[in-house]
Amino acid sequence: MARLTVIKVGGKIVEESESLQSLLDRFARIEGFKLLVHGGGRSATRLAEQLQIPQQMIDGRRVTDAETLRVVTMVYGGLVNKQIVASLQARGINALGLTGADLNVMRSHRRPPKLVKTGDFAGQQVDYGFVGDVDSVNADILARLIADGVVPVMAPLTHDGAGSMLNTNADTIAGETAKALAPHFDVTLMYCFEKKGVLLNPDDDESVIPSIRSDEFPALVQQGVVSGGMLPKLENSFAAIAAGVCQVVITRADAIDNSESGTRLSR
Amino acid sequence: MARLTVIKVGGKIVEESESLQSLLDRFARIEGFKLLVHGGGRSATRLAEQLQIPQQMIDGRRVTDAETLRVVTMVYGGLVNKQIVASLQARGINALGLTGADLNVMRSHRRPPKLVKTGDFAGQQVDYGFVGDVDSVNADILARLIADGVVPVMAPLTHDGAGSMLNTNADTIAGETAKALAPHFDVTLMYCFEKKGVLLNPDDDESVIPSIRSDEFPALVQQGVVSGGMLPKLENSFAAIAAGVCQVVITRADAIDNSESGTRLSR
Repeated sequence: MARLTVIKVGGKIVEESESLQSLLDRFARIEGFKLLVHGGGRSATRLAEQLQIPQQMIDGRRVTDAETLRVVTMVYGGLVNKQIVASLQARGINALGLTGADLNVMRSHRRPPKLVKTGDFAGQQVDYGFVGDVDSVNADILARLIADGVVPVMAPLTHDGAGSMLNTNADTIAGETAKALAPHFDVTLMYCFEKKGVLLNPDDDESVIPSIRSDEFPALVQQGVVSGGMLPKLENSFAAIAAGVCQVVITRADAIDNSESGTRLSR
Repeated sequence: MARLTVIKVGGKIVEESESLQSLLDRFARIEGFKLLVHGGGRSATRLAEQLQIPQQMIDGRRVTDAETLRVVTMVYGGLVNKQIVASLQARGINALGLTGADLNVMRSHRRPPKLVKTGDFAGQQVDYGFVGDVDSVNADILARLIADGVVPVMAPLTHDGAGSMLNTNADTIAGETAKALAPHFDVTLMYCFEKKGVLLNPDDDESVIPSIRSDEFPALVQQGVVSGGMLPKLENSFAAIAAGVCQVVITRADAIDNSESGTRLSR
């Protein structure tokens, strides 16, 4: 099977012109089929502030009321997505911006009110509003586009099939896409992170663990090497691997074109 | 050849939820292949006002500085486009939102400063900023998508091939798309208008001229029946017909599914 790299990049890297351009230079150098999933949360927060739409983050997730849904649809589906697509086209890469609604690529349902387990809202039932939990990925159409040389650029938006867009976390979009495409390609899923990878010692940025096999993971959790925000990230990564993704790479955005860098998770 | 209807709808119809939904119900009923081009100017103006970005319209065209380009990219490429795409998907129509940058569908160059001929700025050189005049349409890829059952939903945005989005009039997008697709389909180009069609008597909304052949057009201009804003619209329509488009229909949005309504322009 042909190789496909699914790369998720969030944070200010995709929202500042200079860092975005250098990221896309590196992205352009990655060989084989590829697909980019982007975030855009900082720009959404900034626009919401300018429009005086109060924002509430619970457990790192944006509570998405109707006004906020308009903001994220504009920022993720318009501003950030089209800047990336136009910049890739300028590099000769045949990018196609997609939300989950386009070609019915990713369908979701509105998340029911949920008991929050950690953080300031622990123990409370929270209604996240127009936030979508993924139901299905249209892998066939994505696979056909990719095989035709198209590079999908996916915004963190899905739709409910009943006419509403929904706000879906970019890590989830990347993970679900990678899993759905695993029967079609040898998929490497790459998460860009502010650190160089999973660190053995959190105070030493150079202590990157080069690889973790799934059977080594429980011990790392028990020893406390993997904890905090890294824990759900790695749990989801190993779930993707169990579902057929070849490997998950956790690396820094400035190293996505360096196959030696970062932490490689595998079966 | 198979029939393709290219429909351009602008104005508040696509920007208000109720009128948009009834428009899309009618759009869904149109038989054969179809493609929708939308505007979104009112929403762009509103967002620009909220963000205190001064807007200047010259001769009906928006002067597009860098901040305004961000606004139209968000509103046209994000908000309006994705609302339409999600609403069509809810009707079982496999819509795909596109700007000119996506799949390199429509490339343009930045309009050089231009001598304005009419209106308040007549005689002045005006720099419209990030406004794109169309250079090329990727008809092959559009035709392939359409033949595959995809319904393209095109935002009035193009790209310059060098990484910048550009703001391009929706009428132009529709006209250029229709012309480019004429070798692939029997194309009907439909412009939605606030009147029922071209009126013989501007004071009588029911005096719709049912059809105008290109050889009848000069006399209507001479008699003053076609004047003002209608004149360039019809000139462009007959240019599209000369370039291979089968017919151009000028009608009201509430009649797009009624093949008897409006004014039909033909060779």
